[in-house]
Amino acid sequence: MTTILITNDDGIHSRGLEVLQKTLAILGRVVTVAPDRDNSAIAHALTMNRPLCLTRRAEDVFTLDGTPTDCVAIALSKVLDAPPDLLVSGINNGANIGDDISYSGTVSAAIEGTMYSVPSMAVSLVGTPPFSFAAAGPIVRDLAGRILDYGLPADTLMNVNIPQQRPIKGLRVTRQGRRIWKQAVQEVHDPWGRLRFWIGGGTPLLDAGKDTDVDAVHNGYVSVTPIHLDLTNHEGISYFREDLDLE
Amino acid sequence: MTTILITNDDGIHSRGLEVLQKTLAILGRVVTVAPDRDNSAIAHALTMNRPLCLTRRAEDVFTLDGTPTDCVAIALSKVLDAPPDLLVSGINNGANIGDDISYSGTVSAAIEGTMYSVPSMAVSLVGTPPFSFAAAGPIVRDLAGRILDYGLPADTLMNVNIPQQRPIKGLRVTRQGRRIWKQAVQEVHDPWGRLRFWIGGGTPLLDAGKDTDVDAVHNGYVSVTPIHLDLTNHEGISYFREDLDLE
Amino acid sequence: MTTILITNDDGIHSRGLEVLQKTLAILGRVVTVAPDRDNSAIAHALTMNRPLCLTRRAEDVFTLDGTPTDCVAIALSKVLDAPPDLLVSGINNGANIGDDISYSGTVSAAIEGTMYSVPSMAVSLVGTPPFSFAAAGPIVRDLAGRILDYGLPADTLMNVNIPQQRPIKGLRVTRQGRRIWKQAVQEVHDPWGRLRFWIGGGTPLLDAGKDTDVDAVHNGYVSVTPIHLDLTNHEGISYFREDLDLE
Amino acid sequence: MTTILITNDDGIHSRGLEVLQKTLAILGRVVTVAPDRDNSAIAHALTMNRPLCLTRRAEDVFTLDGTPTDCVAIALSKVLDAPPDLLVSGINNGANIGDDISYSGTVSAAIEGTMYSVPSMAVSLVGTPPFSFAAAGPIVRDLAGRILDYGLPADTLMNVNIPQQRPIKGLRVTRQGRRIWKQAVQEVHDPWGRLRFWIGGGTPLLDAGKDTDVDAVHNGYVSVTPIHLDLTNHEGISYFREDLDLE
Repeated sequence: MTTILITNDDGIHSRGLEVLQKTLAILGRVVTVAPDRDNSAIAHALTMNRPLCLTRRAEDVFTLDGTPTDCVAIALSKVLDAPPDLLVSGINNGANIGDDISYSGTVSAAIEGTMYSVPSMAVSLVGTPPFSFAAAGPIVRDLAGRILDYGLPADTLMNVNIPQQRPIKGLRVTRQGRRIWKQAVQEVHDPWGRLRFWIGGGTPLLDAGKDTDVDAVHNGYVSVTPIHLDLTNHEGISYFREDLDLE
Repeated sequence: MTTILITNDDGIHSRGLEVLQKTLAILGRVVTVAPDRDNSAIAHALTMNRPLCLTRRAEDVFTLDGTPTDCVAIALSKVLDAPPDLLVSGINNGANIGDDISYSGTVSAAIEGTMYSVPSMAVSLVGTPPFSFAAAGPIVRDLAGRILDYGLPADTLMNVNIPQQRPIKGLRVTRQGRRIWKQAVQEVHDPWGRLRFWIGGGTPLLDAGKDTDVDAVHNGYVSVTPIHLDLTNHEGISYFREDLDLE
Repeated sequence: MTTILITNDDGIHSRGLEVLQKTLAILGRVVTVAPDRDNSAIAHALTMNRPLCLTRRAEDVFTLDGTPTDCVAIALSKVLDAPPDLLVSGINNGANIGDDISYSGTVSAAIEGTMYSVPSMAVSLVGTPPFSFAAAGPIVRDLAGRILDYGLPADTLMNVNIPQQRPIKGLRVTRQGRRIWKQAVQEVHDPWGRLRFWIGGGTPLLDAGKDTDVDAVHNGYVSVTPIHLDLTNHEGISYFREDLDLE
Repeated sequence: MTTILITNDDGIHSRGLEVLQKTLAILGRVVTVAPDRDNSAIAHALTMNRPLCLTRRAEDVFTLDGTPTDCVAIALSKVLDAPPDLLVSGINNGANIGDDISYSGTVSAAIEGTMYSVPSMAVSLVGTPPFSFAAAGPIVRDLAGRILDYGLPADTLMNVNIPQQRPIKGLRVTRQGRRIWKQAVQEVHDPWGRLRFWIGGGTPLLDAGKDTDVDAVHNGYVSVTPIHLDLTNHEGISYFREDLDLE
C-alpha cells in the first residue's frame, strides 16, 4: 500500500496540514509527523542538544517537540516500518521562492527526505493572510500522483509554489530566482529604553529573471522547481583551480 | 582599509573564533559579530519571533543572542557602515562536508553573506576533540588573501575543511560529496520512564566519490569547495517538463 | 456583572481549563488568558527579556506565549477593562501541596492576582493520569461562590487540592506541609555517551503532620489552604536580632 | 572542613559571583555551581522537560545549562559528597525586596537549599547599574560567619539587601514589605506592525511600612529578613473555617 509521510513547519494546528491530510488520503495511507508548534524560519535545524518527545495524537498522527527536519528524521527511523513512497511538506502559509528557500523549514523537511532517498515535495501558498487553500488540494494531488508514478531525479526534490489569484494561469517548471530583503531589520526599545533589533519586514528586491520561480508566481502561475541536494557550483571548480591558483 | 567580518556558530567563547581574529588581523580591520552561545546544527535559521540584543564586548567585538545567520544580518545592517570586503565564518569544531553542509550554521553564515554580495568563506576543522588549530591559521590567511585579491564567482562561497593529521598533504578543489548518518537516533527514558528520542551519534555512510570533499579530507588534504546559492537542479528541469509531463 | 479571570500552567489545550470555563460560567463572565503551551514547574517566572504575543482565540479566550504569571500580568493590564472579581488558576493535573507549592505555576498565577488585590484561588487535582475532573467542578464552583460572597483575608490566596478517590470524605482547612523529593535526579547519556542529569522522579518524603495539606489529601479530603504573600518568618526576627546579634 | 556552595541567577560571568568566591574563600572551601547564562526573573523554576549538562570549568567551579534552582538540586545530589555547611546565592545586581522576592531566582536558590536543610542566604545589591561591590564583601563574610557559628531557625533563610549609598548607616532586621509595579507592561510593534506586550519598566508602588526591607534599604541600611518556607497564613485558617464556613 502506498504510504505518504506529511509534515510542515507551521505546526500540527495548521490549516495547510489538514488540507494535505484530506487531499492525499485518496492516494494511500497518510502518516503525519509534525511539530507541536510554529517553527517558521527555522531552516534545516536539527535538534541535537536535548531528547525529543513524540506524541501520538490519533491513528497515524504524531507531534514532535522539534523542527520539521527532526520530524522527518524521527518519522523515518522510529515511526514508519518502511520508507514511505512520498513525503509532502506543507502547505506553507507564504511563498518559498528565491533565496527564501534557504531559510525555509518547509523545504528543509523535503531536503531531509531526499537525503534518505524518499521522493519529496515542498508546497507553499504565495501571498499573505488570509490564505485560501481551495485551489491547492487538486494541484498537490496531481503532482503527488505524477511523482508516485514516475519518480524524481536522483537527489532532487520538487518545490511547489501556488499563487492565490484566480484563475491560476497554469504551471511553469522554473529555476530558483533571487529575492533578498532590504532594510529588513527594525529597531525597537525594551521597557528600560535599550535598543533592540528585530529582523523582519522590509521590501523584497526581486530578480524576476525569466524562467524563475519568482517570475512564475508573480504572473499567476504555479511554480515547480527541481531543487538539488548538491550545492556545488561545478563551474566554480575551474575558477578555484585556475583564477585562485589553488591545486 | 580592508574590513573583514567574522562570525561562527560555536559562540563567542570558541577557540576557533579567537584563531580567526589573530590570523586575519594582518589583512585588515577585523570585526566580530558572533552568537553569545553555541548554535550548532541550527542551519540557516533566522530569528524573527523576537527582537535581538547586540552587545559590544570590546573594540570591534560584538555578541548577539541569536543564530549565525542573525549575526550576519545584523552586522551588515546595523554594525558596519559599509559592506565588508570579506566574511569568514568559523573555525568550526568538526567537518562541514557532504550533506552536513545543509545543517551547518557555519556555512549558513557564509550563505547569508553571499546573498548580500559579500565574498564569504566557511572554515571547519575535520575530526573530533581535542582540536588543534595550529595548521589552520596560515591556510585561512592564504585563502582569504586570494579571495581579497581575485574575488569569488557570483553567488558562490568557499567552503574549506582542514584535516588534523600532520603533515597536511596539500589542497584539493572538490565537489560536495554525500555523508548520511544511519541509526542516528538514540532512545533514552525520562525520569518517569517515558521513551524519548535523541538525535545524534550513529555511523556515517560515506560517498567518498572521487573529487569530493569527503574523499579529500579522509586522505589528508584540505578541501576547498565552491558552494552555490542556486539550488536548482538545472538538468532536472527537462525531466520535470518531459517525464513528469508538466508544462 | 461578575467577571472571573481563569488561567493555568498546562496551557490552553488542557482539560482542566475547559472544566473551569464550564463550571464558572454560571457565576459570571469568564475570561480566559492562558499559556499557549505547557509551563509546568515554571514557578513564578516572569518573561522580561522578550515581548509577548497575545492571541484572541474566541470571545473572551486568549493565549499568550508566556508563563502563567505573564498571563495574569497581561490580563490585568491589557485584556480586562476593570479588575476581575475573582481569579481561578487550574485545574492542575497533579497536586500542589507541601513544598511543591514553591515550584508551582498554578499557584504562582494566584499569587500574581493576589499581589494586584484580586481574590484568587489555585486548584489542583491530586494523583496521576488519567485524571477525572468529575468531582472537581461542583467543589470549585462552591468555593468560588463563597469567595465572591465573603472575600479572602488580605494578601492571601486559597490553595485547593482535590483527591480523586471516591467518595470524597469532606473538606479540610489546612496548613502547608512538607514534601521533598529524594534521589530525584536521574542520569542519562546523550548520543555521544556524555553524562547528563535529568531532574524528576524519586520518592516523596512526606511530613504528613496533623492539619497539613499533605495529610488531608492522603486521607481523601479536599485540602483548602490560606497562602500568604508575606514570606517573613516573624518569629525568626527576634532570633536574628538576639541569637545572631544583628542590630 | 567548612564547605560553602555558591550560585546565582545572573550566570557564571557575573561580577557578584566572583566577589562571593573571593570573599568566602577565607571561611572554607567554596564550590560554585552556577547557570551558564542569565536567568533573571526565572523564580523557582525547575527544569524537568530535558536533561541538564553540568560542565566543570575549573577546580570546584561548575556551570549548568539550567536555572538557579536546578543548580542547587544538582549540586546537592551530584557535585558534593556531603551537604554543604552554607549556601550563598548572589550577589544579585538589583534589590530583592517586597514582592520582588516572589519572582527572584536569587532567593529561590536559597529556598531550594533551605528545603534540603542547608543553611542558606540570598544577597542582593540595591540600585541600578553600575554596581559597586566594594562594601558587600565584608558584610556577606560577617553574616556568613554568624550563620556558620549559630545556625538559622528551622525552614528559614536569610535574605540580605545591601544599599549602594556610602556610608552604609547600619543593619536592620526587617520583615518583607510590599513593592508592586504599576503600568509595567509596554507596547511595541513587531516588524509586521503587530502589537506585542513587553513586561518591565513602570513605577514601583512602595509600602515603606516601618520595619520593612523596603524601608530599610531606602534609608541606607542593610536589610536582613528571615524568610520562611511555610507560606501558610495561619491567621487565615480560622477565617476560612468560620467566615467562609468551610469545615
